[in-house]
Amino acid sequence: MEIKLAENYGFCFGVKRAIEIAEESKNAYTYGPLIHNREEINRLQENFNVTTAHEIDELENTDRVIIRTHGIVKDELKKLNESGKEIINATCPFVTKPQEIVEQMSKEGYKVVIFGDEKHPEVKGVKSYAVNDPVVVMGIEDLEGHHLGVKVAVVSQTTRKVKEFMKIVNHLIENVKEVRVFNTICNATFENQEAADKLSKEADVMIVIGGKNSSNTKQLFSIVERNCKDSYHIEVPEELQPEWFEGKKLCGVTAGASTPDWIIQNVIEKIRKFSV
Amino acid sequence: MEIKLAENYGFCFGVKRAIEIAEESKNAYTYGPLIHNREEINRLQENFNVTTAHEIDELENTDRVIIRTHGIVKDELKKLNESGKEIINATCPFVTKPQEIVEQMSKEGYKVVIFGDEKHPEVKGVKSYAVNDPVVVMGIEDLEGHHLGVKVAVVSQTTRKVKEFMKIVNHLIENVKEVRVFNTICNATFENQEAADKLSKEADVMIVIGGKNSSNTKQLFSIVERNCKDSYHIEVPEELQPEWFEGKKLCGVTAGASTPDWIIQNVIEKIRKFSV
Repeated sequence: MEIKLAENYGFCFGVKRAIEIAEESKNAYTYGPLIHNREEINRLQENFNVTTAHEIDELENTDRVIIRTHGIVKDELKKLNESGKEIINATCPFVTKPQEIVEQMSKEGYKVVIFGDEKHPEVKGVKSYAVNDPVVVMGIEDLEGHHLGVKVAVVSQTTRKVKEFMKIVNHLIENVKEVRVFNTICNATFENQEAADKLSKEADVMIVIGGKNSSNTKQLFSIVERNCKDSYHIEVPEELQPEWFEGKKLCGVTAGASTPDWIIQNVIEKIRKFSV
Repeated sequence: MEIKLAENYGFCFGVKRAIEIAEESKNAYTYGPLIHNREEINRLQENFNVTTAHEIDELENTDRVIIRTHGIVKDELKKLNESGKEIINATCPFVTKPQEIVEQMSKEGYKVVIFGDEKHPEVKGVKSYAVNDPVVVMGIEDLEGHHLGVKVAVVSQTTRKVKEFMKIVNHLIENVKEVRVFNTICNATFENQEAADKLSKEADVMIVIGGKNSSNTKQLFSIVERNCKDSYHIEVPEELQPEWFEGKKLCGVTAGASTPDWIIQNVIEKIRKFSV
């Protein structure tokens, strides 16, 4: 069986940057998981003593706080900045962008629509920058019952699928006089998605590696499973099952933006062992 | 044979308004045809002595100039305003809107994209309000080779089909960071199009009445001919052919936004005569 990696996969610019920042910030705390990959977070804890705090109160024990790639809520950032602690901001610049847009547009009187998962930390952060009441939607059905007015600004969670973003935008354009569309889906997400789509059309088994709570990994999985019915989303090599590869000719491998290369390599090695 | 009118058809707000203005401006000249309907223009000439000038030089003979519903080029309007003549502006307010948007957006540094027919007077007028170099497109292929930058504002000719506008908008969103979408397609166009679409699905012959150079009438025709293969675009009752209605059960009738009711009534009467 041949094993083929997608042309684009894994670590994006923002994640690489955040990990470098963390490696240079020994003994610091991150507020929330730095990235959505447990294995990599464990590595940072073990090798650099970078600890994950899950609640803001847990940060009382440290004077160095790293802000996670997904960003945090505006008021909490303000509170931390005022606390006298050293704040090391590892928010991905592609996430800072929609935060700024939402703040600016809401100040200019635009109704803000955010395409994304209300429960995802990135979206919680972006939403918190609006000075009026933004609407968070996963599909056009979520727009129902909202009074949108004549001026709407729309942004997307960075890791969403562009086609689904379009559906929402198109619906808005049909109903609102001015729609200001900021395509804040990040290029790495785009590129990983396109490469996954392409590879999954030729592969007869697809392995998608990444955190189970990683939005962009889940998007990758939803793309590949449409093309290749034998698709699996795993976090660690231990989850691989030998029977997945029986009789297969081409195994495609891709990984989410927060999946480190060392995990991808371990996965590929384990698959290779099955196929000899 | 039953004859059925579309639920919405004919005169839009802007055309009604322009005709009222012309009727109250006896002996005036219009610069270009007031609306795209020759019969109605002849009526205004005969009953109100409102004359159509096709070149700006022809206006030398009058001191009262009516600006046509489609609007005119900015510099010419300026020249006319400075000429000392009385200028009666019958530009449809839905056309003034994209003119203002294009001026404002181009001043703010947005690349302006206009969806429409470069040769249509409305588009020529709208385009002339840009302070930088706007791009006029009929489809995404026309965007090729243009450097769009990171900020694009897009408007539509008022009489275009919303689905085609979306195609252009979607292409822009995939390629440009900020796309400011102004849905300037007018509601009357929308409503006439929707009603024509609906009626042409049940009719076995469709008559679309309106000027052969009327953009919105041509759009109506392109919608109905998809649903009903026996569709005809006529300007006057004389064009009707008895064989079009032989063996038909339901004749649908619709008309463009510049088609007066008296023409529609004449057409219906003539069709009725064929079917007895």
